[in-house]
Amino acid sequence: MRERLAAGGARAHSGEVIVASGDDAAVVAARGATATSVDMIVEGVHFEAPPFELREVGRKALAVALSDLAAMGAAPGEAYVQLGAPAERTDAEVLELAEGVGEVAAAHSVVVAGGDLSRAPVLIVAVTVVGTAPSPDALVRRSGALPGDVVAVTGELGGAAAGLLASRRPELAGGIDAAVAAGLRSRQVDPRPRIEAGLALASAGARAMIDLSDGLAGDARHVSDAARVAIEIDSEAVPIAAGVAEIAAAAGVGTLDLALAGGEDYELLVALPADAVETARTAVAETGIALTVIGRVAAGDGVRISGTDGAVTTPSAFDQRRRSAEPADSA
Amino acid sequence: MRERLAAGGARAHSGEVIVASGDDAAVVAARGATATSVDMIVEGVHFEAPPFELREVGRKALAVALSDLAAMGAAPGEAYVQLGAPAERTDAEVLELAEGVGEVAAAHSVVVAGGDLSRAPVLIVAVTVVGTAPSPDALVRRSGALPGDVVAVTGELGGAAAGLLASRRPELAGGIDAAVAAGLRSRQVDPRPRIEAGLALASAGARAMIDLSDGLAGDARHVSDAARVAIEIDSEAVPIAAGVAEIAAAAGVGTLDLALAGGEDYELLVALPADAVETARTAVAETGIALTVIGRVAAGDGVRISGTDGAVTTPSAFDQRRRSAEPADSA
Repeated sequence: MRERLAAGGARAHSGEVIVASGDDAAVVAARGATATSVDMIVEGVHFEAPPFELREVGRKALAVALSDLAAMGAAPGEAYVQLGAPAERTDAEVLELAEGVGEVAAAHSVVVAGGDLSRAPVLIVAVTVVGTAPSPDALVRRSGALPGDVVAVTGELGGAAAGLLASRRPELAGGIDAAVAAGLRSRQVDPRPRIEAGLALASAGARAMIDLSDGLAGDARHVSDAARVAIEIDSEAVPIAAGVAEIAAAAGVGTLDLALAGGEDYELLVALPADAVETARTAVAETGIALTVIGRVAAGDGVRISGTDGAVTTPSAFDQRRRSAEPADSA
Repeated sequence: MRERLAAGGARAHSGEVIVASGDDAAVVAARGATATSVDMIVEGVHFEAPPFELREVGRKALAVALSDLAAMGAAPGEAYVQLGAPAERTDAEVLELAEGVGEVAAAHSVVVAGGDLSRAPVLIVAVTVVGTAPSPDALVRRSGALPGDVVAVTGELGGAAAGLLASRRPELAGGIDAAVAAGLRSRQVDPRPRIEAGLALASAGARAMIDLSDGLAGDARHVSDAARVAIEIDSEAVPIAAGVAEIAAAAGVGTLDLALAGGEDYELLVALPADAVETARTAVAETGIALTVIGRVAAGDGVRISGTDGAVTTPSAFDQRRRSAEPADSA
């Protein structure tokens, strides 16, 4: 079984990885700087399978880890994958999960350079990803945002949260097109890390970036805290994914609540100098997605979200609404 | 809680780690080559706590991962630690485990550069360690052993297996000195990665190395397979830790079975050119442990172990005896 898993990794060899599976450690030749991130997902805590297919569990585990590299503007390099599985899971099931990891690795030219398989009471996928940049300064941190910078997001928000609601209450999607509903499910179970957009934004002069895992309001707060600045968001400017308004209405929650606090969209939030926005927009468009200006960085602290009614609110209000709108077992 | 865990990691900052906890990924400046290894341990599969103290679980999790770097001749750099813990575990318990990780990190100047804490049905510690060397060629792989090389081990063997037996049946240690018994327990619960010895052996010209996690017989087989050579071991030459013979006799198992197949000693098995042995022995002695010649590399394949009676046996015989001598839940 280990051999079959290792064979999957070895297929994706790259020039910089000199030793992958089969020794005490993977050997990788020097690059200018590395960005390393770890993510662990646990069955019953972060996902249930079903309704997740095992292939989707593997895909999402690696995609979510790669999203952190995207938010640094790093080019993905290697992944190390530790799988835990109960005795009841068949080899075929474990391989299906590993194949999901392998599919996302192949899509982003990531080498699965090491890993292990262990017995565990539930499925566990612990992923380490290593990305690279020409120098440490080329990597975009959360702390670099400056007053006067423009705040923008890639893609459209709210889709993952709407997809989660619809997967639990399929009747909510009754009023929308089947293709749109499938797209929302896909946002939840098969997120696409914005690797190319992250590289484009880093090249265009991004001063700070973060990927949207907690939700726009909460993740903006992480940037605000790290950079010791205020972040102002115009809620009317936030791009909303197709179908989100309909699902929100059917569920009796606010569309903006899903977009600002729903989480798991894995789009990028970026702070850019104002004169870099057009270059950035063009570069991101070349990767097939939009870059939308949604606010600005100011002196001060905290996150302020101006509503359609002119009222200004704070992320904690969204957090509370999110908690009451979602089932308690949501990750 | 995350903040308190992160503060523990940040204390150990090194010059090469530019961003540790608190961003999307850790940023590390280039080194000649990196060696990366992952290890995951799961409560109820790899350990039980008690009798393991949580501090010991943390210590062993990192030590075992660092042992893989020792076996590459890599200098330890960063560690990334993903903890899973059930809701019943208190913050104090999780911190005790993290402190165990931190103690071993500090002892080897390892920077805990990232990590995460997650809910899980049992305790889980997934560790990623990154070590460095001036170039990829400076890292010692399993595959480099050549016919004519001398085979040696660091330290003494069998202690971890004897300690495991005695922890399950304390009466077995009735006939030995209390300090010796404590030493055997320590070999089992608090292994010391042979980092300095690994660096010394790499500098002295080691052609192949592996750390002894499965047991000498099985790990020799990994080198034999990787290098496509035969490995011949004189069982009389194998250095046995103090107290092992007494525990083995009391348990009714062979002393050599514990030394050759017991596993978890985390000493290093090395293949060296014959003319490098004296230099290597002196260099390893300077790290406080012995290097003992136990055999040789020959053309062919497989592992041959010559017994005191002149009979030659194979690792599979030891594996079978090991399985029958140990409780079924042993890792």
